Amino acid sequence: MINNLPANTVERLSNYRRTLHDLKKEEKSYIHSHQLAHFLKINPAHVRRDLMLIGFSGDIHKGYNISRLIESIGKAIDCVHMQKVAFVGVGDLGRAVADYFNNQDTKLQVAATFRIGEEPGMQFSDVKCYNIARMKEVMRGEHIELCVLAVPHAFVAEVSKVIVASGVKGILNFTSARLKVPKEIYVEHYDMISKLEKLAYFTNKDTCPGE
Amino acid sequence: MINNLPANTVERLSNYRRTLHDLKKEEKSYIHSHQLAHFLKINPAHVRRDLMLIGFSGDIHKGYNISRLIESIGKAIDCVHMQKVAFVGVGDLGRAVADYFNNQDTKLQVAATFRIGEEPGMQFSDVKCYNIARMKEVMRGEHIELCVLAVPHAFVAEVSKVIVASGVKGILNFTSARLKVPKEIYVEHYDMISKLEKLAYFTNKDTCPGE
Repeated sequence: MINNLPANTVERLSNYRRTLHDLKKEEKSYIHSHQLAHFLKINPAHVRRDLMLIGFSGDIHKGYNISRLIESIGKAIDCVHMQKVAFVGVGDLGRAVADYFNNQDTKLQVAATFRIGEEPGMQFSDVKCYNIARMKEVMRGEHIELCVLAVPHAFVAEVSKVIVASGVKGILNFTSARLKVPKEIYVEHYDMISKLEKLAYFTNKDTCPGE
Repeated sequence: MINNLPANTVERLSNYRRTLHDLKKEEKSYIHSHQLAHFLKINPAHVRRDLMLIGFSGDIHKGYNISRLIESIGKAIDCVHMQKVAFVGVGDLGRAVADYFNNQDTKLQVAATFRIGEEPGMQFSDVKCYNIARMKEVMRGEHIELCVLAVPHAFVAEVSKVIVASGVKGILNFTSARLKVPKEIYVEHYDMISKLEKLAYFTNKDTCPGE
Protein backbone atom coordinates (compact mmCIF):
# COMPACT_ATOMS: atom_id res chain seq x y z
CA MET A 1 0.00 0.00 0.00
CA ILE A 2 1.00 3.61 -0.52
CA ASN A 3 0.46 5.52 2.71
CA ASN A 4 -1.06 8.99 2.91
CA LEU A 5 -3.08 9.04 -0.30
CA PRO A 6 -5.88 11.64 -0.08
CA ALA A 7 -9.34 10.16 0.64
CA ASN A 8 -10.78 11.39 -2.67
CA THR A 9 -7.91 9.86 -4.60
CA VAL A 10 -8.51 6.47 -2.96
CA GLU A 11 -12.18 6.62 -3.92
CA ARG A 12 -11.39 7.59 -7.50
CA LEU A 13 -8.74 4.88 -7.85
CA SER A 14 -11.35 2.35 -6.79
CA ASN A 15 -13.66 3.77 -9.45
CA TYR A 16 -10.99 3.70 -12.16
CA ARG A 17 -10.29 0.06 -11.41
CA ARG A 18 -13.96 -0.87 -11.81
CA THR A 19 -14.13 0.88 -15.17
CA LEU A 20 -10.84 -0.73 -16.25
CA HIS A 21 -12.21 -4.19 -15.42
CA ASP A 22 -15.20 -3.45 -17.67
CA LEU A 23 -12.92 -2.27 -20.49
CA LYS A 24 -10.77 -5.35 -20.14
CA LYS A 25 -13.85 -7.53 -20.60
CA GLU A 26 -14.38 -5.66 -23.88
CA GLU A 27 -10.83 -6.74 -24.79
CA LYS A 28 -9.36 -3.26 -24.73
CA SER A 29 -5.68 -3.00 -23.79
CA TYR A 30 -4.97 0.74 -23.55
CA ILE A 31 -6.86 3.85 -22.49
CA HIS A 32 -6.05 7.58 -22.43
CA SER A 33 -6.65 9.74 -19.36
CA HIS A 34 -9.30 11.81 -21.12
CA GLN A 35 -11.23 8.65 -22.07
CA LEU A 36 -11.15 7.32 -18.51
CA ALA A 37 -12.22 10.76 -17.26
CA HIS A 38 -15.08 10.80 -19.76
CA PHE A 39 -16.43 7.44 -18.53
CA LEU A 40 -16.44 8.70 -14.95
CA LYS A 41 -17.60 12.23 -15.79
CA ILE A 42 -14.65 13.83 -14.04
CA ASN A 43 -11.81 16.15 -15.01
CA PRO A 44 -8.91 14.46 -16.93
CA ALA A 45 -6.49 16.45 -14.76
CA HIS A 46 -7.77 14.48 -11.74
CA VAL A 47 -7.00 11.19 -13.48
CA ARG A 48 -3.49 12.29 -14.34
CA ARG A 49 -2.79 13.63 -10.86
CA ASP A 50 -4.14 10.51 -9.13
CA LEU A 51 -2.02 8.21 -11.28
CA MET A 52 1.02 10.39 -10.73
CA LEU A 53 0.46 9.97 -6.98
CA ILE A 54 0.70 6.19 -7.34
CA GLY A 55 3.71 6.53 -9.65
CA PHE A 56 1.99 5.21 -12.77
CA SER A 57 2.75 6.60 -16.19
CA GLY A 58 1.36 5.84 -19.62
CA ASP A 59 2.69 5.64 -23.15
CA ILE A 60 2.36 9.07 -24.80
CA HIS A 61 0.79 7.54 -27.93
CA LYS A 62 -1.08 4.48 -26.68
CA GLY A 63 -2.12 5.77 -23.24
CA TYR A 64 -2.26 3.64 -20.09
CA ASN A 65 -1.85 -0.13 -20.22
CA ILE A 66 -5.12 -1.37 -18.67
CA SER A 67 -3.84 -4.58 -17.04
CA ARG A 68 -0.80 -2.90 -15.58
CA LEU A 69 -2.88 -0.03 -14.25
CA ILE A 70 -5.33 -2.41 -12.53
CA GLU A 71 -2.34 -4.06 -10.88
CA SER A 72 -0.80 -0.74 -9.78
CA ILE A 73 -4.06 0.48 -8.28
CA GLY A 74 -4.23 -2.75 -6.31
CA LYS A 75 -0.71 -2.26 -4.99
CA ALA A 76 -1.55 1.32 -4.02
CA ILE A 77 -4.84 0.88 -2.18
CA ASP A 78 -5.32 -2.81 -1.30
CA CYS A 79 -4.00 -4.51 1.77
CA VAL A 80 -1.95 -7.64 1.04
CA HIS A 81 -4.26 -9.84 3.07
CA MET A 82 -7.95 -10.45 2.40
CA GLN A 83 -10.39 -8.52 4.58
CA LYS A 84 -13.89 -9.65 5.39
CA VAL A 85 -16.94 -7.40 5.38
CA ALA A 86 -20.33 -7.90 7.06
CA PHE A 87 -23.61 -6.25 6.08
CA VAL A 88 -25.79 -5.48 9.08
CA GLY A 89 -29.41 -4.70 8.21
CA VAL A 90 -28.48 -3.67 4.67
CA GLY A 91 -30.91 -5.97 2.88
CA ASP A 92 -30.96 -6.29 -0.89
CA LEU A 93 -28.99 -3.09 -1.33
CA GLY A 94 -25.79 -5.02 -0.69
CA ARG A 95 -26.30 -7.62 -3.39
CA ALA A 96 -24.49 -5.85 -6.24
CA VAL A 97 -21.64 -4.91 -3.90
CA ALA A 98 -21.27 -8.52 -2.74
CA ASP A 99 -21.33 -9.70 -6.36
CA TYR A 100 -18.50 -7.34 -7.26
CA PHE A 101 -16.21 -8.23 -4.37
CA ASN A 102 -16.90 -11.95 -4.26
CA ASN A 103 -16.72 -12.70 -7.98
CA GLN A 104 -13.54 -10.85 -8.82
CA ASP A 105 -9.98 -10.94 -7.69
CA THR A 106 -10.42 -8.33 -4.92
CA LYS A 107 -9.06 -8.05 -1.40
CA LEU A 108 -12.50 -7.59 0.15
CA GLN A 109 -14.97 -10.36 0.66
CA VAL A 110 -18.54 -10.03 1.88
CA ALA A 111 -18.60 -12.86 4.40
CA ALA A 112 -21.91 -12.47 6.24
CA THR A 113 -25.13 -10.52 6.34
CA PHE A 114 -27.25 -10.02 9.44
CA ARG A 115 -30.95 -9.38 9.73
CA ILE A 116 -33.02 -8.09 12.57
CA GLY A 117 -36.06 -10.00 13.75
CA GLU A 118 -36.31 -12.50 10.95
CA GLU A 119 -35.41 -16.13 10.54
CA PRO A 120 -31.96 -16.64 9.09
CA GLY A 121 -31.90 -17.57 5.42
CA MET A 122 -29.75 -17.28 2.31
CA GLN A 123 -29.91 -13.65 1.34
CA PHE A 124 -27.51 -13.57 -1.62
CA SER A 125 -26.40 -16.50 -3.73
CA ASP A 126 -23.22 -17.19 -1.79
CA VAL A 127 -23.28 -15.04 1.34
CA LYS A 128 -24.76 -16.55 4.46
CA CYS A 129 -27.44 -14.60 6.32
CA TYR A 130 -27.67 -14.78 10.11
CA ASN A 131 -30.02 -13.52 12.76
CA ILE A 132 -28.48 -10.48 14.43
CA ALA A 133 -28.42 -12.30 17.79
CA ARG A 134 -25.46 -14.33 16.45
CA MET A 135 -23.48 -11.29 15.29
CA LYS A 136 -20.69 -11.25 17.88
CA GLU A 137 -20.00 -14.96 17.57
CA VAL A 138 -20.01 -14.94 13.74
CA MET A 139 -17.98 -11.72 13.40
CA ARG A 140 -15.29 -13.03 15.72
CA GLY A 141 -15.31 -16.55 14.24
CA GLU A 142 -15.02 -15.23 10.68
CA HIS A 143 -12.51 -12.50 11.62
CA ILE A 144 -14.66 -9.81 10.04
CA GLU A 145 -12.93 -6.41 10.12
CA LEU A 146 -15.30 -4.09 8.25
CA CYS A 147 -19.04 -3.66 8.39
CA VAL A 148 -21.82 -1.73 6.73
CA LEU A 149 -24.39 -0.70 9.32
CA ALA A 150 -27.95 0.05 8.26
CA VAL A 151 -30.25 -0.91 11.11
CA PRO A 152 -33.28 1.14 12.21
CA HIS A 153 -32.58 3.98 14.64
CA ALA A 154 -33.89 2.16 17.72
CA PHE A 155 -31.28 -0.59 17.32
CA VAL A 156 -28.20 1.56 16.64
CA ALA A 157 -26.90 1.91 20.21
CA GLU A 158 -27.22 -1.78 21.03
CA VAL A 159 -25.91 -3.07 17.69
CA SER A 160 -22.92 -0.74 17.62
CA LYS A 161 -21.87 -2.00 21.07
CA VAL A 162 -21.83 -5.56 19.70
CA ILE A 163 -19.87 -4.41 16.64
CA VAL A 164 -17.23 -2.81 18.84
CA ALA A 165 -17.04 -5.94 21.01
CA SER A 166 -16.60 -8.03 17.84
CA GLY A 167 -13.30 -6.32 17.06
CA VAL A 168 -14.35 -4.51 13.89
CA LYS A 169 -11.86 -1.89 12.60
CA GLY A 170 -14.06 0.16 10.26
CA ILE A 171 -17.76 0.96 9.90
CA LEU A 172 -19.68 2.40 6.94
CA ASN A 173 -22.58 4.00 8.79
CA PHE A 174 -25.90 4.39 6.95
CA THR A 175 -27.96 5.14 10.03
CA SER A 176 -28.77 8.78 10.76
CA ALA A 177 -27.24 8.37 14.22
CA ARG A 178 -23.74 9.40 15.14
CA LEU A 179 -22.02 6.31 16.51
CA LYS A 180 -20.38 6.22 19.91
CA VAL A 181 -17.36 4.03 19.17
CA PRO A 182 -13.71 4.18 20.26
CA LYS A 183 -11.65 6.54 18.14
CA GLU A 184 -9.46 3.67 16.80
CA ILE A 185 -12.45 2.53 14.75
CA TYR A 186 -12.65 4.35 11.43
CA VAL A 187 -16.21 5.49 10.70
CA GLU A 188 -17.44 6.71 7.32
CA HIS A 189 -20.86 8.28 7.62
CA TYR A 190 -23.46 8.41 4.86
CA ASP A 191 -26.30 10.79 5.48
CA MET A 192 -29.31 10.02 3.30
CA ILE A 193 -31.40 12.85 4.76
CA SER A 194 -28.99 15.60 3.71
CA LYS A 195 -28.40 13.95 0.32
CA LEU A 196 -32.17 13.97 -0.28
CA GLU A 197 -32.48 17.60 0.78
CA LYS A 198 -29.64 18.43 -1.59
CA LEU A 199 -31.38 16.50 -4.38
CA ALA A 200 -34.58 18.44 -3.71
CA TYR A 201 -32.67 21.73 -3.78
CA PHE A 202 -31.02 21.04 -7.13
CA THR A 203 -34.21 19.81 -8.78
CA ASN A 204 -36.00 22.98 -7.67
CA LYS A 205 -33.55 25.82 -7.62
CA ASP A 206 -34.43 27.23 -11.01
CA THR A 207 -38.18 26.67 -10.86
CA CYS A 208 -39.32 27.06 -7.29
CA PRO A 209 -40.29 30.60 -6.29
CA GLY A 210 -38.64 32.09 -3.20
CA GLU A 211 -40.67 33.31 -0.27
CA MET B 1 -35.05 29.48 -2.01
CA ILE B 2 -31.66 31.06 -2.50
CA ASN B 3 -30.31 30.10 -5.89
CA ASN B 4 -26.72 29.05 -6.56
CA LEU B 5 -25.72 27.80 -3.14
CA PRO B 6 -22.76 25.39 -3.40
CA ALA B 7 -23.70 21.71 -3.11
CA ASN B 8 -21.65 21.18 0.06
CA THR B 9 -23.28 24.17 1.69
CA VAL B 10 -26.75 22.79 0.98
CA GLU B 11 -25.79 19.46 2.56
CA ARG B 12 -24.31 21.13 5.60
CA LEU B 13 -27.33 23.42 6.06
CA SER B 14 -29.52 20.31 6.06
CA ASN B 15 -27.25 18.85 8.74
CA TYR B 16 -27.28 22.02 10.85
CA ARG B 17 -31.05 22.04 10.80
CA ARG B 18 -31.23 18.48 12.08
CA THR B 19 -28.88 19.26 14.95
CA LEU B 20 -30.80 22.46 15.71
CA HIS B 21 -34.07 20.50 15.95
CA ASP B 22 -32.42 18.20 18.50
CA LEU B 23 -31.14 21.17 20.50
CA LYS B 24 -34.57 22.76 20.45
CA LYS B 25 -36.04 19.59 21.96
CA GLU B 26 -33.53 20.05 24.79
CA GLU B 27 -35.03 23.53 25.23
CA LYS B 28 -31.90 25.40 24.15
CA SER B 29 -32.48 28.78 22.48
CA TYR B 30 -29.04 29.92 21.28
CA ILE B 31 -25.92 28.28 19.94
CA HIS B 32 -22.45 29.53 18.94
CA SER B 33 -20.84 28.58 15.62
CA HIS B 34 -18.05 26.65 17.35
CA GLN B 35 -20.59 24.59 19.30
CA LEU B 36 -22.56 23.72 16.17
CA ALA B 37 -19.29 22.87 14.41
CA HIS B 38 -18.27 20.66 17.33
CA PHE B 39 -21.51 18.63 17.14
CA LEU B 40 -20.95 18.01 13.43
CA LYS B 41 -17.18 17.53 13.67
CA ILE B 42 -16.48 20.24 11.12
CA ASN B 43 -14.55 23.49 11.02
CA PRO B 44 -16.34 26.49 12.69
CA ALA B 45 -15.23 28.63 9.71
CA HIS B 46 -17.50 26.49 7.49
CA VAL B 47 -20.48 27.15 9.73
CA ARG B 48 -19.87 30.89 9.69
CA ARG B 49 -19.36 30.99 5.91
CA ASP B 50 -22.46 28.90 5.20
CA LEU B 51 -24.64 31.10 7.38
CA MET B 52 -23.16 34.20 5.80
CA LEU B 53 -24.18 32.81 2.40
CA ILE B 54 -27.82 32.61 3.53
CA GLY B 55 -27.57 36.05 5.10
CA PHE B 56 -27.97 34.90 8.70
CA SER B 57 -26.12 36.57 11.53
CA GLY B 58 -25.96 35.87 15.24
CA ASP B 59 -25.72 37.88 18.42
CA ILE B 60 -22.05 38.39 19.29
CA HIS B 61 -22.66 37.33 22.91
CA LYS B 62 -25.53 34.84 22.76
CA GLY B 63 -24.74 33.24 19.38
CA TYR B 64 -27.37 32.18 16.84
CA ASN B 65 -31.07 32.08 17.72
CA ILE B 66 -31.98 28.43 17.09
CA SER B 67 -35.62 28.87 16.03
CA ARG B 68 -34.80 31.73 13.70
CA LEU B 69 -31.91 29.81 12.17
CA ILE B 70 -34.10 26.74 11.50
CA GLU B 71 -36.53 29.07 9.74
CA SER B 72 -33.80 30.74 7.67
CA ILE B 73 -32.33 27.44 6.55
CA GLY B 74 -35.79 26.40 5.40
CA LYS B 75 -36.18 29.59 3.40
CA ALA B 76 -32.77 29.05 1.82
CA ILE B 77 -32.96 25.41 0.77
CA ASP B 78 -36.59 24.26 0.83
CA CYS B 79 -39.03 24.63 -1.98
CA VAL B 80 -42.28 26.36 -0.98
CA HIS B 81 -44.38 23.39 -2.01
CA MET B 82 -44.19 19.88 -0.54
CA GLN B 83 -42.29 17.31 -2.61
CA LYS B 84 -42.93 13.61 -2.48
CA VAL B 85 -40.22 10.95 -2.41
CA ALA B 86 -40.41 7.24 -3.28
CA PHE B 87 -38.05 4.51 -2.09
CA VAL B 88 -37.49 1.85 -4.74
CA GLY B 89 -35.95 -1.36 -3.39
CA VAL B 90 -34.46 0.48 -0.40
CA GLY B 91 -35.91 -1.81 2.27
CA ASP B 92 -35.51 -1.09 5.96
CA LEU B 93 -32.69 1.32 5.32
CA GLY B 94 -35.22 4.03 4.54
CA ARG B 95 -37.15 3.77 7.77
CA ALA B 96 -35.22 6.37 9.79
CA VAL B 97 -35.26 8.75 6.81
CA ALA B 98 -39.03 8.38 6.42
CA ASP B 99 -39.49 8.95 10.16
CA TYR B 100 -37.51 12.19 9.98
CA PHE B 101 -39.33 13.66 6.99
CA ASN B 102 -42.82 12.46 7.84
CA ASN B 103 -42.89 13.36 11.53
CA GLN B 104 -41.51 16.86 11.33
CA ASP B 105 -42.43 20.05 9.61
CA THR B 106 -40.34 19.37 6.47
CA LYS B 107 -40.96 19.95 2.77
CA LEU B 108 -40.20 16.35 1.82
CA GLN B 109 -42.55 13.48 2.40
CA VAL B 110 -41.83 9.81 1.81
CA ALA B 111 -45.03 8.83 0.01
CA ALA B 112 -44.40 5.28 -1.22
CA THR B 113 -41.98 2.41 -1.12
CA PHE B 114 -41.67 -0.24 -3.81
CA ARG B 115 -40.45 -3.81 -3.55
CA ILE B 116 -39.38 -6.25 -6.18
CA GLY B 117 -40.88 -9.69 -6.29
CA GLU B 118 -42.78 -9.68 -3.03
CA GLU B 119 -46.36 -9.21 -2.02
CA PRO B 120 -47.20 -5.64 -1.16
CA GLY B 121 -47.38 -4.91 2.57
CA MET B 122 -46.90 -2.11 5.08
CA GLN B 123 -43.20 -1.54 5.21
CA PHE B 124 -43.02 1.40 7.58
CA SER B 125 -45.64 2.54 10.05
CA ASP B 126 -47.25 5.11 7.77
CA VAL B 127 -45.73 4.66 4.30
CA LYS B 128 -47.51 2.34 1.91
CA CYS B 129 -45.49 -0.38 0.21
CA TYR B 130 -46.35 -1.44 -3.35
CA ASN B 131 -45.20 -4.11 -5.71
CA ILE B 132 -42.87 -2.58 -8.26
CA ALA B 133 -45.24 -3.49 -11.08
CA ARG B 134 -47.48 -0.62 -9.91
CA MET B 135 -44.67 1.95 -9.85
CA LYS B 136 -45.60 4.10 -12.83
CA GLU B 137 -49.27 4.33 -11.86
CA VAL B 138 -48.53 5.17 -8.19
CA MET B 139 -45.69 7.61 -8.97
CA ARG B 140 -47.88 9.55 -11.37
CA GLY B 141 -50.99 9.36 -9.18
CA GLU B 142 -49.12 10.61 -6.11
CA HIS B 143 -47.08 13.21 -8.08
CA ILE B 144 -43.81 11.81 -6.76
CA GLU B 145 -40.84 13.94 -7.89
CA LEU B 146 -37.84 12.35 -6.19
CA CYS B 147 -36.79 8.76 -5.73
CA VAL B 148 -34.12 6.70 -4.04
CA LEU B 149 -33.16 3.79 -6.27
CA ALA B 150 -31.60 0.68 -4.74
CA VAL B 151 -32.66 -2.28 -6.84
CA PRO B 152 -30.35 -5.19 -7.77
CA HIS B 153 -28.19 -4.66 -10.83
CA ALA B 154 -30.27 -6.83 -13.16
CA PHE B 155 -33.33 -4.58 -12.69
CA VAL B 156 -31.67 -1.18 -13.05
CA ALA B 157 -32.22 -0.65 -16.79
CA GLU B 158 -35.88 -1.64 -16.72
CA VAL B 159 -36.75 0.18 -13.49
CA SER B 160 -35.00 3.40 -14.48
CA LYS B 161 -37.04 3.51 -17.70
CA VAL B 162 -40.23 3.36 -15.62
CA ILE B 163 -38.89 6.07 -13.30
CA VAL B 164 -38.24 8.37 -16.25
CA ALA B 165 -41.70 7.65 -17.67
CA SER B 166 -43.21 8.50 -14.27
CA GLY B 167 -41.98 12.09 -14.50
CA VAL B 168 -39.46 12.00 -11.67
CA LYS B 169 -37.11 15.03 -11.46
CA GLY B 170 -34.32 13.68 -9.26
CA ILE B 171 -32.82 10.29 -8.41
CA LEU B 172 -30.56 9.28 -5.55
CA ASN B 173 -28.83 6.28 -7.13
CA PHE B 174 -27.54 3.54 -4.82
CA THR B 175 -27.01 0.98 -7.54
CA SER B 176 -23.50 0.51 -8.88
CA ALA B 177 -24.80 1.17 -12.40
CA ARG B 178 -24.59 4.49 -14.18
CA LEU B 179 -28.13 5.47 -15.12
CA LYS B 180 -29.13 6.30 -18.66
CA VAL B 181 -31.64 9.08 -18.04
CA PRO B 182 -32.34 12.40 -19.79
CA LYS B 183 -30.04 15.16 -18.65
CA GLU B 184 -32.93 17.17 -17.15
CA ILE B 185 -33.13 14.57 -14.40
CA TYR B 186 -30.73 15.36 -11.57
CA VAL B 187 -28.87 12.22 -10.45
CA GLU B 188 -26.86 11.94 -7.26
CA HIS B 189 -24.79 8.76 -7.24
CA TYR B 190 -23.70 6.88 -4.14
CA ASP B 191 -21.00 4.33 -4.73
CA MET B 192 -20.82 1.79 -1.90
CA ILE B 193 -17.98 -0.16 -3.53
CA SER B 194 -15.54 2.74 -3.59
CA LYS B 195 -16.61 3.84 -0.08
CA LEU B 196 -15.83 0.33 1.18
CA GLU B 197 -12.46 0.27 -0.56
CA LYS B 198 -11.71 3.66 1.00
CA LEU B 199 -12.76 2.33 4.42
CA ALA B 200 -10.45 -0.66 3.95
CA TYR B 201 -7.59 1.64 2.93
CA PHE B 202 -7.93 3.88 5.99
CA THR B 203 -8.26 0.99 8.43
CA ASN B 204 -5.06 -0.56 7.02
CA LYS B 205 -2.77 2.18 5.89
CA ASP B 206 -0.62 2.27 9.01
CA THR B 207 -0.51 -1.45 9.69
CA CYS B 208 -0.60 -3.29 6.38
CA PRO B 209 2.82 -3.99 4.82
CA GLY B 210 3.39 -2.86 1.24
CA GLU B 211 4.37 -5.30 -1.45
